[in-house]
Amino acid sequence: MIDLHLIGIGTGNPDHLTRAAESAMRAADLILLPRKRADTVDLYDLRRALCDEVLTPSTRVVAFDLPVRDADAGYLTGVRTWHAAIADAWTAQIATHLPEGGRLALLVWGDPSLYDSTLRIAARLQAGGMALRVTVVPGITSLQALTAAHAIPLNDLGAPVLITTGRQLATHCWPTDATTVAVMLDGEGAFTTLDPANTQIWWGAYLGMPQQALLSGPLAETGPTILARRAALRAEHGWIMDCYLLRRSTPA
Amino acid sequence: MIDLHLIGIGTGNPDHLTRAAESAMRAADLILLPRKRADTVDLYDLRRALCDEVLTPSTRVVAFDLPVRDADAGYLTGVRTWHAAIADAWTAQIATHLPEGGRLALLVWGDPSLYDSTLRIAARLQAGGMALRVTVVPGITSLQALTAAHAIPLNDLGAPVLITTGRQLATHCWPTDATTVAVMLDGEGAFTTLDPANTQIWWGAYLGMPQQALLSGPLAETGPTILARRAALRAEHGWIMDCYLLRRSTPA
Repeated sequence: MIDLHLIGIGTGNPDHLTRAAESAMRAADLILLPRKRADTVDLYDLRRALCDEVLTPSTRVVAFDLPVRDADAGYLTGVRTWHAAIADAWTAQIATHLPEGGRLALLVWGDPSLYDSTLRIAARLQAGGMALRVTVVPGITSLQALTAAHAIPLNDLGAPVLITTGRQLATHCWPTDATTVAVMLDGEGAFTTLDPANTQIWWGAYLGMPQQALLSGPLAETGPTILARRAALRAEHGWIMDCYLLRRSTPA
Repeated sequence: MIDLHLIGIGTGNPDHLTRAAESAMRAADLILLPRKRADTVDLYDLRRALCDEVLTPSTRVVAFDLPVRDADAGYLTGVRTWHAAIADAWTAQIATHLPEGGRLALLVWGDPSLYDSTLRIAARLQAGGMALRVTVVPGITSLQALTAAHAIPLNDLGAPVLITTGRQLATHCWPTDATTVAVMLDGEGAFTTLDPANTQIWWGAYLGMPQQALLSGPLAETGPTILARRAALRAEHGWIMDCYLLRRSTPA
């Protein structure tokens, strides 16, 4: 039996760790750290640094190479093929390092519930017949780090919020159900597809990290500034993770 | 100058506390604990217990009576009047206990960004002329505690999620922008107003606490079970806090 703990670790600030996350890291027999393609190598380093800070040397920490997603396949097809390849990589690591079973931990950026694939990959292993029990330890998401950094509420008083992706926003434009939209996974500046009238944006990159960057203001003026800043930061650091909140003062 | 720290503490489980939350609690000159009407007294006790666990006796912790919201006023009007009364109560406590200024902390259930009034009340004090700097420490929300307890993702793969209230759901029915809806602040079972076809529900109460209760399944069968369980738990404990996730397998 594999006792899998998916541990939300927040967005790179060790102070985002909860007591439950620290305990779960320390109780693991094995922590697997994915290594991705070069432009996200900082995330490996950050997870590694968290381990060095929290763990005693008795916990085994093993890095493994994460398969690369085929960007040429259709989005959902490409993601599903990628998840299957990651499930195979986990299976191989488990066979090598926990052949008798035990307590396995994965450190999940943000929170395992929000735009993260580890729960789906765990479900693939279960569907493939592995005896796997899944426990989730919630963590601070980048949206919470964003609203905290700007000291703003996510929602207007008693009002709904739509959490979506850059891809969805660019396809569907402004939603009908909410005057607040939180956007994640946007590498293309999907907000440029919107009519910026009466719309404020609050943007943040590297949230919680030393290089944290914040911008906010009316979308019409601040949008282009964000695009330029984003490009400059990506060039400087070699990678970027960011998200933003949009709010309309009148219903769309 | 008042240096106000709004500290997200999660949903009552001390293990939800982040390192940042613990540090901010310990660094405070004064922590104000609101005492509400009798049916939510457990929240006061939980905050008090957190303080006892985390703080040294040198930190001053002061309880104050929170004004009661006028349930007969219209919703938004009633809430705004209530916020004004709370702002007055904070002002009085600050004048009494931090007359020279200093570092004030409030322990916010969940996260200060999500369906919480403290940021709005702080803005009222600033608008009223108080020299007040606001720092937000993010915390685990009940939605994260819910998805963690059920070990489910919040979103479908690459898909949006609408976070809303029971009041909004009952008024607007199923949204057009999302096949996943997270519902908070629902004292009336707003899900009973929906067509339950092709809809799953994941419900949780007292999330993270010893008395945590979970139910999930098809809305048609599970909805009535939740209503009955909710009423029984409320009678047993004298109060309840719960939330739920709805997911449709086909677009509405």
